[in-house]
Amino acid sequence: MSAKKNLAHQLIEQHLIRGNMTPGEEVQLKIDHTLCQDATGTMVMLEFEALGLPQVKTEVSAQYVDHNLIQSDFKNADDHLFLRSASRKWGIWFSRPGNGISHAVHMACFGVPGKTLLGSDSHTCAGGAMGMLAMGAGGLQVALAMAGKPFSLVMPEVVGVEVTGKLPPWVSAKDVILEMLRRYDVKGGVNKIFEYYGPGLENLTAMDRHVIANMGQEMGATASVFPADEAVRAFLKQQGREQDFVPMQAEEGADYDHHDRIDLSQLEPMIACPSSPGNVVTVREVAGKPIYQSYIGSSANPGLRDFVVPAQMLEGKQIPEEISLDINPTSRQVLEELSRSGDLNRLLLAGARLHQTGCNGCIGMGQAPASDRISLRTVPRNFPGRSGTKEDQVYLCSPETATASALSGKITDPRDMEMEYPAFTEPDTLTDMRPLMLAPEDRSNEIPVELEKGPNIQPLPEFDSVPEKLSGPILLKTGDNVSTDEILPAGTDILPLRSNIPAISHYTFSRIDETFYARAKKHAGDCFVIGGENYGQGSSREHAAITPRYLGVRAVIAVSMARIHRRNLINFGVVPLLFKKPEDLVGLNQDDMLKIDDLPKQLQNGRDIEIQVTGGKALTVTHNMSEDEVATVIAGGLINEVRDSH
Amino acid sequence: MSAKKNLAHQLIEQHLIRGNMTPGEEVQLKIDHTLCQDATGTMVMLEFEALGLPQVKTEVSAQYVDHNLIQSDFKNADDHLFLRSASRKWGIWFSRPGNGISHAVHMACFGVPGKTLLGSDSHTCAGGAMGMLAMGAGGLQVALAMAGKPFSLVMPEVVGVEVTGKLPPWVSAKDVILEMLRRYDVKGGVNKIFEYYGPGLENLTAMDRHVIANMGQEMGATASVFPADEAVRAFLKQQGREQDFVPMQAEEGADYDHHDRIDLSQLEPMIACPSSPGNVVTVREVAGKPIYQSYIGSSANPGLRDFVVPAQMLEGKQIPEEISLDINPTSRQVLEELSRSGDLNRLLLAGARLHQTGCNGCIGMGQAPASDRISLRTVPRNFPGRSGTKEDQVYLCSPETATASALSGKITDPRDMEMEYPAFTEPDTLTDMRPLMLAPEDRSNEIPVELEKGPNIQPLPEFDSVPEKLSGPILLKTGDNVSTDEILPAGTDILPLRSNIPAISHYTFSRIDETFYARAKKHAGDCFVIGGENYGQGSSREHAAITPRYLGVRAVIAVSMARIHRRNLINFGVVPLLFKKPEDLVGLNQDDMLKIDDLPKQLQNGRDIEIQVTGGKALTVTHNMSEDEVATVIAGGLINEVRDSH
Repeated sequence: MSAKKNLAHQLIEQHLIRGNMTPGEEVQLKIDHTLCQDATGTMVMLEFEALGLPQVKTEVSAQYVDHNLIQSDFKNADDHLFLRSASRKWGIWFSRPGNGISHAVHMACFGVPGKTLLGSDSHTCAGGAMGMLAMGAGGLQVALAMAGKPFSLVMPEVVGVEVTGKLPPWVSAKDVILEMLRRYDVKGGVNKIFEYYGPGLENLTAMDRHVIANMGQEMGATASVFPADEAVRAFLKQQGREQDFVPMQAEEGADYDHHDRIDLSQLEPMIACPSSPGNVVTVREVAGKPIYQSYIGSSANPGLRDFVVPAQMLEGKQIPEEISLDINPTSRQVLEELSRSGDLNRLLLAGARLHQTGCNGCIGMGQAPASDRISLRTVPRNFPGRSGTKEDQVYLCSPETATASALSGKITDPRDMEMEYPAFTEPDTLTDMRPLMLAPEDRSNEIPVELEKGPNIQPLPEFDSVPEKLSGPILLKTGDNVSTDEILPAGTDILPLRSNIPAISHYTFSRIDETFYARAKKHAGDCFVIGGENYGQGSSREHAAITPRYLGVRAVIAVSMARIHRRNLINFGVVPLLFKKPEDLVGLNQDDMLKIDDLPKQLQNGRDIEIQVTGGKALTVTHNMSEDEVATVIAGGLINEVRDSH
Repeated sequence: MSAKKNLAHQLIEQHLIRGNMTPGEEVQLKIDHTLCQDATGTMVMLEFEALGLPQVKTEVSAQYVDHNLIQSDFKNADDHLFLRSASRKWGIWFSRPGNGISHAVHMACFGVPGKTLLGSDSHTCAGGAMGMLAMGAGGLQVALAMAGKPFSLVMPEVVGVEVTGKLPPWVSAKDVILEMLRRYDVKGGVNKIFEYYGPGLENLTAMDRHVIANMGQEMGATASVFPADEAVRAFLKQQGREQDFVPMQAEEGADYDHHDRIDLSQLEPMIACPSSPGNVVTVREVAGKPIYQSYIGSSANPGLRDFVVPAQMLEGKQIPEEISLDINPTSRQVLEELSRSGDLNRLLLAGARLHQTGCNGCIGMGQAPASDRISLRTVPRNFPGRSGTKEDQVYLCSPETATASALSGKITDPRDMEMEYPAFTEPDTLTDMRPLMLAPEDRSNEIPVELEKGPNIQPLPEFDSVPEKLSGPILLKTGDNVSTDEILPAGTDILPLRSNIPAISHYTFSRIDETFYARAKKHAGDCFVIGGENYGQGSSREHAAITPRYLGVRAVIAVSMARIHRRNLINFGVVPLLFKKPEDLVGLNQDDMLKIDDLPKQLQNGRDIEIQVTGGKALTVTHNMSEDEVATVIAGGLINEVRDSH
């Protein structure tokens, strides 16, 4: 630890319960705030129920409903009512459907500099925009945090990013994070916190920083942090909460493990090409390709300005009728303000389609593009098929680029529009959304609250502890950068099954291999999955660990693993193993039989694990679990472990 | 024909091409306007393509995109692009997604008193609100009308409904048509036109009349007509089209086949209970039941006032967070006006959810209610399961009743709200939506337009002519009032398959008997379906005739049939037969074998058809097809017939 503390170290130190702040060592942190969204929240509430506590022990816990808003049948609506009943029962803020996307709403309603925030959504990291230490995690860890338990993580290295200059016209916060992704790709941020500092920050609003912090997740980062400075004070003032402002910043001349810098004035419009957020080029390089859709909204561009600037760009113009310009307002607050200012009508009169407030197409809940057509989106991710269209061509870009392209019908650098860059001024105040939430104090303490569980809400299956001798086939071998969207997809058919593991397990790995479920059911026993680099990147959905486990997967062996997914595997008793050399996976193929003797003992005794492969080959792999994590995985997961400890 | 002509007779006479205006005889009418929506329109365009014409021959043909707006995958988006390309190719107005619901948009943009309008949507009849003869029909008949062919129908009787008085506060147009449904139920209007006249009409705006004309369909009526009077002139003026006004009315003292009267001042809030639009009682009778949802919008309550009155009722109030108040704006015009007037924000601040512009939950595209909970809706239909939730409890009511109930959390007579009834004044002008459509003149005449067919757009299967000897089992026996929603459901999974008959056929009769598809595939031959009264009520979807035919159904024998579905059966070569006495169906059961000898000859020779039933029983049934219809059904449907005539 440095004498001059950076902000990340201050935040960690102030919440440190156990451990040593040396990169790579395990630390345990006190969690002040938690958030859940509905697609992960039903499972979190079932887990919290299993813990048997009368009330959450955090300062603030909030449950949002922003994912499963389509309601094709009873399932989503039942889930909403279940989450409301759970919130009432345990003293959780409940944000009704239509209030908006968790991250932006949480920041507006509850964000306080200096606090820790753990959320069952990978983009929880957006909270770093206001000097919070905000991280995504698997649902079970969020349930434990709600129960007052500390959160364990590997102490990350801190990358200090010095920001200078000022963004030129037509370049905005999205281009900053796309430039970072160009540099770091989807795994360059693993086990790192990106801390932004420097004089350029005075030219970035709190919501600009939200854009950057949100997509830090796409680099694999543990968190992103920004100081709580005058921009954050202005944000809180606008939200009617100036009294919650606490200044937070790195000490003068603070040390960092790594250094980087970004000169805002040198940036230009950037775009991530299909089908990875790290596949970034300048817009100029791909300009001219015809498009079908421009999609504006999502947690990655949630600020009012992300809608007002497009509205101003479109004033008095019309987009061609074959282009779908999809407007997805972030929150009730944003939609209301757009309506008040007339910007909503500017969008409508230009031909835009207005969708309901929420995550929508970003997680495949509608707005899928046509076959073989290009979709430009301001969302954080373009993993293959995530849009709902299997062979999709989704590009990630700024609202400016998306709007310019919708107008011209082809990918267009917004600097090529023959107009002045619209000026945007933040309104002095925005509507407080908390009166439209169920507050913890609204909970009746006299009458016990019944949990309202619809017929699709099924208990979590029970899982065994790790066997002494583990043997079985390799049921699947995947490539690099497999995302949790590929392990267990979202979308309109699958998301409604999130509270029903047996039902949702049918879709396990379906984007990669449609036969997986049938083969797993036929095998009906222990098995292995082999992964490449950065296995399990993307969302925090613990279902991507639970359903493989439910189908018999007892260990995943990969070259490297994404942080949240690795921990989700442990939480549900799937052993995360790592190849010592990437080339070790070359000789392994689907249906090869693997055998590991004395697995618990090997895990406890050291880093190396000996595996016998069909035909007598031997293979040594490794693991990077802490002692606590080894205990958890051997027990068959956290639930077993917590229950056994009673 | 009467000496003093009622308006319905004037409209028919002015468009009569062949036939005699005696009730029960076939008449052929010239069609001036056609409209399609996207869920039926893809099939219409495939049919029009088969006709091989370079351009439509109507005065106005319009294609709307209002049904399949969710886009879970590529299919809906592909369909939208296909419809646009077809519109460009053949000179059809194309209304992009987000413009709104066909009926209200057509009335606003194109409605002209005195014209005939045929639409591939059963609620096309709403156009009767402005002195048009507007009717729903199967898609194939709309395709033929686009090709300039006359439309055949059985000359209906005309019911003259004298309207007097003025609606009391809290009672609105929806209560008028619910009162009519209370009187006539879902089949009292079969082969009838309801013509409204009298001094009470000056108290109903054009959009009030739209509500009444729209749900005339729920009584089984062929059409509903209102005069084109000062209210219609005011409507056209508001739409910037006063020059299109043509006064139309019944001659003084005109004759009607039947008489009815309705005193608006005597009405009170009404509600249709689950699961039939004819199951009407007063709101008072069911007040107090707890609800989950209030749904506002759809073609049945599309007027600006249907949103403004709820907004005014909710000003400064909040609905409980467990109630879902779903706002579904009719059109871009309505949404824009709500935003401009501040009413949108009144709704948002009360806790309402704003959905995209279109049909949405009315046809099961989202917004399904929770299990075992009551949903109040301003939509036209509450057939079982149409909401998307299988065992649903959907009630139909006015926006006033829906809003009052959302506020209190239980079914509430709006007269019991302690407030003054909000005054509503129509704005002087509304935004013209035509600039946001592709106009026929925008079509390039130089470069031939390619139809853009995505991979899900499959050609219509070919069907044989009626066999000499028809024999096979009764594959299904249904009850009374089976709707086309039960024959071939809509909803998020099924609607996207509308341009792919083999794929959508899996869902045939799935709401009634989940084994039907498997049994039909196993049988793999000719078969029969037995129905009760009013078989095939509801929507105009020709898929409810095509998929049974595709699966081998060659004849339906029912007690009575709904007009549009009966004609769709004929159009696709399914013989519609009728029991002579309702009790004849008692002895028939699923799996009984039926045999009809010399079927074509029997159909040509008279009304009686002799059937041999398993075990040697004989049964005589009848048919009511015209000579032309018999020729069509024997040919195996209209497409064969038209092709054979080349």
